Amino acid sequence: MSTDSWLGGAAAVATLTFDVDAESPVLAAGAHYAGHLMTMSHQSYGPDVGVPRILDMLDELGVPATFFVPGWVARHRPGLAASIVERGHEVAHHSYAHRAPTSMSDQEERDDFARAMDVFAAQGIEIQGHRAALWGARWQTPELVAEHGLRYDSSLMADDRPYRIATARGEIAELPVHWSLDDWEQYAFLPEPAIGTVIESPAKVLELWCAELDGMRHYGCLFNLCCHPFLSGRPGRLLALRRLVEHALEYGDVTFLRCRDVAAAALADPALTARALPEPPVYP
Amino acid sequence: MSTDSWLGGAAAVATLTFDVDAESPVLAAGAHYAGHLMTMSHQSYGPDVGVPRILDMLDELGVPATFFVPGWVARHRPGLAASIVERGHEVAHHSYAHRAPTSMSDQEERDDFARAMDVFAAQGIEIQGHRAALWGARWQTPELVAEHGLRYDSSLMADDRPYRIATARGEIAELPVHWSLDDWEQYAFLPEPAIGTVIESPAKVLELWCAELDGMRHYGCLFNLCCHPFLSGRPGRLLALRRLVEHALEYGDVTFLRCRDVAAAALADPALTARALPEPPVYP
Amino acid sequence: MSTDSWLGGAAAVATLTFDVDAESPVLAAGAHYAGHLMTMSHQSYGPDVGVPRILDMLDELGVPATFFVPGWVARHRPGLAASIVERGHEVAHHSYAHRAPTSMSDQEERDDFARAMDVFAAQGIEIQGHRAALWGARWQTPELVAEHGLRYDSSLMADDRPYRIATARGEIAELPVHWSLDDWEQYAFLPEPAIGTVIESPAKVLELWCAELDGMRHYGCLFNLCCHPFLSGRPGRLLALRRLVEHALEYGDVTFLRCRDVAAAALADPALTARALPEPPVYP
Amino acid sequence: MSTDSWLGGAAAVATLTFDVDAESPVLAAGAHYAGHLMTMSHQSYGPDVGVPRILDMLDELGVPATFFVPGWVARHRPGLAASIVERGHEVAHHSYAHRAPTSMSDQEERDDFARAMDVFAAQGIEIQGHRAALWGARWQTPELVAEHGLRYDSSLMADDRPYRIATARGEIAELPVHWSLDDWEQYAFLPEPAIGTVIESPAKVLELWCAELDGMRHYGCLFNLCCHPFLSGRPGRLLALRRLVEHALEYGDVTFLRCRDVAAAALADPALTARALPEPPVYP
Repeated sequence: MSTDSWLGGAAAVATLTFDVDAESPVLAAGAHYAGHLMTMSHQSYGPDVGVPRILDMLDELGVPATFFVPGWVARHRPGLAASIVERGHEVAHHSYAHRAPTSMSDQEERDDFARAMDVFAAQGIEIQGHRAALWGARWQTPELVAEHGLRYDSSLMADDRPYRIATARGEIAELPVHWSLDDWEQYAFLPEPAIGTVIESPAKVLELWCAELDGMRHYGCLFNLCCHPFLSGRPGRLLALRRLVEHALEYGDVTFLRCRDVAAAALADPALTARALPEPPVYP
Repeated sequence: MSTDSWLGGAAAVATLTFDVDAESPVLAAGAHYAGHLMTMSHQSYGPDVGVPRILDMLDELGVPATFFVPGWVARHRPGLAASIVERGHEVAHHSYAHRAPTSMSDQEERDDFARAMDVFAAQGIEIQGHRAALWGARWQTPELVAEHGLRYDSSLMADDRPYRIATARGEIAELPVHWSLDDWEQYAFLPEPAIGTVIESPAKVLELWCAELDGMRHYGCLFNLCCHPFLSGRPGRLLALRRLVEHALEYGDVTFLRCRDVAAAALADPALTARALPEPPVYP
Repeated sequence: MSTDSWLGGAAAVATLTFDVDAESPVLAAGAHYAGHLMTMSHQSYGPDVGVPRILDMLDELGVPATFFVPGWVARHRPGLAASIVERGHEVAHHSYAHRAPTSMSDQEERDDFARAMDVFAAQGIEIQGHRAALWGARWQTPELVAEHGLRYDSSLMADDRPYRIATARGEIAELPVHWSLDDWEQYAFLPEPAIGTVIESPAKVLELWCAELDGMRHYGCLFNLCCHPFLSGRPGRLLALRRLVEHALEYGDVTFLRCRDVAAAALADPALTARALPEPPVYP
Repeated sequence: MSTDSWLGGAAAVATLTFDVDAESPVLAAGAHYAGHLMTMSHQSYGPDVGVPRILDMLDELGVPATFFVPGWVARHRPGLAASIVERGHEVAHHSYAHRAPTSMSDQEERDDFARAMDVFAAQGIEIQGHRAALWGARWQTPELVAEHGLRYDSSLMADDRPYRIATARGEIAELPVHWSLDDWEQYAFLPEPAIGTVIESPAKVLELWCAELDGMRHYGCLFNLCCHPFLSGRPGRLLALRRLVEHALEYGDVTFLRCRDVAAAALADPALTARALPEPPVYP
């Protein structure tokens, strides 16, 4: 077992995160999808049905979570972010319009980032962390996170334990994600825009995530799970997610935290040395 | 357990629905596929072999079902719709030519909708509900359903319980569908037009649907299953579907109904408030 | 249990068929792939390693099989077809160059068909049946089969029991295939030409095929399995195929036959009425 | 059980191979991906986190392995190759820039091949074998391997046992690979460049590989497993890989070797006759 202080004696730390994207990923793929009523209803299920159900389940399980909300979603559903914070969970920054930074110019990313900060400020929601839309962070993204006074980002994959990134605007923590701990690749399906292929069963997804949890307990990692309310809020999938949490709690050596609490512990852990952001590789 | 009246005391209500598409989805993708004998034979299996076998199985299980039939299919197989109604099941509207409303102009959708109504009227088939081809409903679709005097639509995904939609032409019930309760994403495969990737085993599909049924019994939902006779009419898959129904019946708290009966109960349930159809979202 | 005479008292009849495509499907997708040594080696594995191993396994199990061989493959591997017939199995026609009839003109299909017949005639291989490349039969294909004096085709999907097709050149039997009984969709993977997505485990494929076998025993069908030596000839997959056959033999009510023997029984069974080939559908 | 001398009395020989690609496959797909920080972090995980963890696991299990490293990766991470050799494992040639030979001209392939040799020579790393990037070998590749004095290639699929290839520049051993023994098709996922579809669970992959191991023990084959540290270095997947090795060791009839040792045994085995490289097939 690792003796790193950020783990606080646990074999692994778990962060349940929910990306409350609503209609934004589909509209970012094509504004004309606003006219597709079925597709819009598929996406609105997330905040309207999935989020309340998830909040109730978290209450029943007694574990905290972090909800990454695009500014556009928070603005068009004014009470949403507050309803999450009131239940003891964290709301964090997930872009304004759910466009990947890699698809934007420097200035577009700056503007999109600030616009989301403005929405949360206007709603009195305190923000400490950021996750790039589509996890599509690029080289300037960590500096932008630091520049806005946030403490962490959660979009990168250079490790499976938290690490610190030194930027020109100060140091932030990185809480790494990974495709294998994302419900999107397992469950998402839409014909237009074309998303997904076969739809996996909750039993398979539970098996996948339990295997990763076991590996992360073995290696002392951050089990940073990313779910989407329009996907994992569905009845059968939510029961599987509940079983995953119950399974982790039964181990007795997994601590569930909000992302901001992991970030604070990581920034205070001298065993996690700061990495300078590498130069982009030169190829070939 | 929910005390909503539409559930009638059950933990969940189940609707077995069969979209009898025959050749129409392939021909809608390209009229030249009419010359592909193998592809046409793959599709004709649905009404010719799958439907009679499904009707026999439903008799043996003693459960009712709803068959969504495109008008073009009903017209070219004149006895098909009547043979379904005679066995005590419901026939409902599934477009005329299996083109998604989102791919048509307002007028084209209107004409296609009316043309199917005409076919069913000429055959003496009473229609109460509608499901959009490819579930591709757009903003005017619910109003069109109400305008023709139908009581329900079954193409949207804003909830996993029935809901009511207020339109300018009156109120209808929505019986929501979902990709995870559709056999198409699990089983469909054709090289031209390119449909599907890997083909799942009936055991996996049974596992997926049983998981969703359990979740829906937990949350008091409508288990609205969509199967296609050319897919689920195959021998091994039909045995899996039979096991699913038997499994649900063994619970003793799942009621199987035709869609029209669920719609009637939903429209009469004061706990299910009517939703005005939202404005299309403005983005960004 | 069905009392149709073609079943000969069995619950289901099984035909093990092997499409010995070798390099032809890849070269039909692009002649420049001839320069891709890895890809060519991937395909040559079929006749060079897979076929001898399959022949040995069939000997050990004591069951007959049918090998569909493109004329191009038979011509470039002169001893191949004879080595199969010598072991008591059937060799059948699988096009000359593994191009789908739907991708050819009438005359091109005629020429390709005849060219394969010439190869087999020159090698003294008697041919009774045909399977279209990529199963891509079109409307004239059955007549072409009859015109060449063959007794059956095995490319269509209008049923899961044999049926008879009346053509202007006489009647043939159809031994229907289906995507779910094909190893291609489960196992095939190549980056160029892009074939397949994820690769399934033999355990999943065994599960899928056993489920279909059970369904077909229930409904009295033809379990017409299509395997490719370059896919199912691999060690782990061949053991799974062996287990499938052993499993079927243990039931005691499944008869393994060559396709020509099923065709003869089907043509002699008055319960299987002849179907006129339908007109291509008019749409919409 | 085979009595071929290359097996050394084992039922099967196993080679654990790791393709340490780091950022190279993504950059070969598009140099602009260098600006995608998330994607670069996803790839750097391989050498930075995966490789050290894999080396520790190999120590614990007491089995040797072979690491195929692109010259570009070795050059930009100067200590990497040496750190692998120091632990008793083999480093082999995996192109310079991870471009498939089939995508290059003759001269480009020659230059790329030599450039990687130069990097390893400068680092004092002795190279005996080669694996083409993307396994994309073409007709001249084996001769190039021989020309540089290497003893084996591991990119082809004409067999599942080692074979010898006679080239104009001498004989080499081929240690064949296969898509079913590659973690890429099971685990790899990236949205840009678009790689992969659904992500499989380690349990499924373990099942797949154990099935192939059983088949290869049955037929006396080379179980030549290809893993990527950025994929199989993840916690849950690495535990599955450990279980695979433990499972193989428990059989007591599987020998784990470095590729160079298998190549030496294959070149010394008179039962493995040399194959002249066939002429590219003429089609149709």
